[in-house]
Amino acid sequence: MMSDFTYVDGLQSGTYGRAELEALVAGRLAAVTVTLGFWDTTVEGLESITRYRRLARENADLIEIATSVEDIERIAASGRTALLLGFQNTSPLGGNVRFVELLADLGVRNLQLTYNIQNDVGSSCYEPKDGGLSRFGAEVIGEMNRNGMLVDLSHVGHRTSLDAVHASAQPVAITHANAADLVPHARSVSTELIRAVAGRGGVVGCVLYPKLAGDYASTLDSWCELVLRTVDLVGIDHVGIGSDIGGRTDDASLEWMREGRWTLLPNWGAASASAPGDEDPGWFPSMASFPTIADALAQRGLSHEEVNAITGGNWMSLYRKVLP
Amino acid sequence: MMSDFTYVDGLQSGTYGRAELEALVAGRLAAVTVTLGFWDTTVEGLESITRYRRLARENADLIEIATSVEDIERIAASGRTALLLGFQNTSPLGGNVRFVELLADLGVRNLQLTYNIQNDVGSSCYEPKDGGLSRFGAEVIGEMNRNGMLVDLSHVGHRTSLDAVHASAQPVAITHANAADLVPHARSVSTELIRAVAGRGGVVGCVLYPKLAGDYASTLDSWCELVLRTVDLVGIDHVGIGSDIGGRTDDASLEWMREGRWTLLPNWGAASASAPGDEDPGWFPSMASFPTIADALAQRGLSHEEVNAITGGNWMSLYRKVLP
Repeated sequence: MMSDFTYVDGLQSGTYGRAELEALVAGRLAAVTVTLGFWDTTVEGLESITRYRRLARENADLIEIATSVEDIERIAASGRTALLLGFQNTSPLGGNVRFVELLADLGVRNLQLTYNIQNDVGSSCYEPKDGGLSRFGAEVIGEMNRNGMLVDLSHVGHRTSLDAVHASAQPVAITHANAADLVPHARSVSTELIRAVAGRGGVVGCVLYPKLAGDYASTLDSWCELVLRTVDLVGIDHVGIGSDIGGRTDDASLEWMREGRWTLLPNWGAASASAPGDEDPGWFPSMASFPTIADALAQRGLSHEEVNAITGGNWMSLYRKVLP
Repeated sequence: MMSDFTYVDGLQSGTYGRAELEALVAGRLAAVTVTLGFWDTTVEGLESITRYRRLARENADLIEIATSVEDIERIAASGRTALLLGFQNTSPLGGNVRFVELLADLGVRNLQLTYNIQNDVGSSCYEPKDGGLSRFGAEVIGEMNRNGMLVDLSHVGHRTSLDAVHASAQPVAITHANAADLVPHARSVSTELIRAVAGRGGVVGCVLYPKLAGDYASTLDSWCELVLRTVDLVGIDHVGIGSDIGGRTDDASLEWMREGRWTLLPNWGAASASAPGDEDPGWFPSMASFPTIADALAQRGLSHEEVNAITGGNWMSLYRKVLP
């Protein structure tokens, strides 16, 4: 199946059953980066890799794990969706810089430097203090560069992120965060930071998840307004889509995402006690709706090339630079 | 065996064979805190606990693992040495705040918040930037307080340490570090910090390890000068001994201590490429020499009570406040 536009989702969360995988294909997605884990130890990370390998084997008519741009192009050309494997934490390294190479050999192509707390690499967007990228963190980025892994700064603290942009020999991504000037939120990213990312050839993925998109999440058209305003901030070549949805979540998985093992207290992340649940925007019932974004952007007056850059072309250009 | 003075070593490193344990008893040490690990994962930490249990079982005529002040007093009264179990890192928690209670139940009584790099709790003295104590770190300290574990700030960065002093409901220790005003070194501690520790009832342990004691390590008398100058800085009630030696080390264990798994590059910690080795001061061939420190302090004019405070009394007072 060939689609009019290239569709790539820079970051999805949740777990996949056959229905969610069918939605990826119905949405004509060439590639999505999936979240293998949030708080994993090394062994848990390896177990998650095995679960995604099994998922891919059991649904080979719909998906395949990709480790290169050539893989993505081949899988998409066959009418299926390529999965890029990523972790929203460097915790699977277990503090071992030499494990970057092993995870790369096992197909991992995206590591987010921190999830919601400080780790041995740096600080998160929710940490009150951010001492910046650690010496271990700089070595991890060096190994990620060497092994063709995308450095992801979503959820990462401001100072750590700026340090990482400059420490990385390759362009980096903020796969799923909106601009703080548009949606004020701890998880949003400053214009200074996204311009630094763009200045080095990186991409920021606009988020569909309503708690992070604010009023812009109300309608397809208002969400496209968010995208266009992000383009105004960093330029057409540096904006993509990182929906932060796509898989299934339940209360237990939400609690795990938010609290992991690190706190005795309730911790809400982007949610709150009064609005604990997760929900997709009403105008985006599943990934089958992905192409409607292209239609809405075109109605806003964007050229075919501009729409294509946002819906997937920019991610593909970045992958061409970074992946092995 | 009753000794004239109370002898306690706030922190020892290295591994113990029968000879080293006999030296502890010959030195009339009531208690020593031993180092179970530097970079351990949870499972490695548990394995280290089993190794020390086996050591204690096989040498029950010389040592016993203590978990309370009553244990120490009973073991010392029997002419043996009490071992307090400690880790020079919070890495055995594996990021799980609920594991503090489990490690406490297994007898661990001392956790150093960081070793030589940043972790999820805070930053080390060697990290160029120190964002202070993390939110996870504050929860860990709360659990350590609740479970009768001593918070150890040796190797910890300045800002993280100051945060920890104030976050802890109990007095804290710097079990093995010298004053930076006396021995300028990244591993030494500022007068501001040790006064903050003392102000909350804590204790700083003067180090014998030559690379951290500088010229003061030359002779027994010059080392006692270091101790007395430390007393001048923080007062007689807040200075102890934390030798940072005592067990065996070899080249492989030194490399592990210094580099762990976090760096691809040589990292020397307190040593250097030109002076990579470890050595004990010539005037202190083994722990059997511990009582010579008391003699030398007495010759300096200290009263019996003052000598006793330094050689072990202050550690015992701190343990009385902190241990379960």
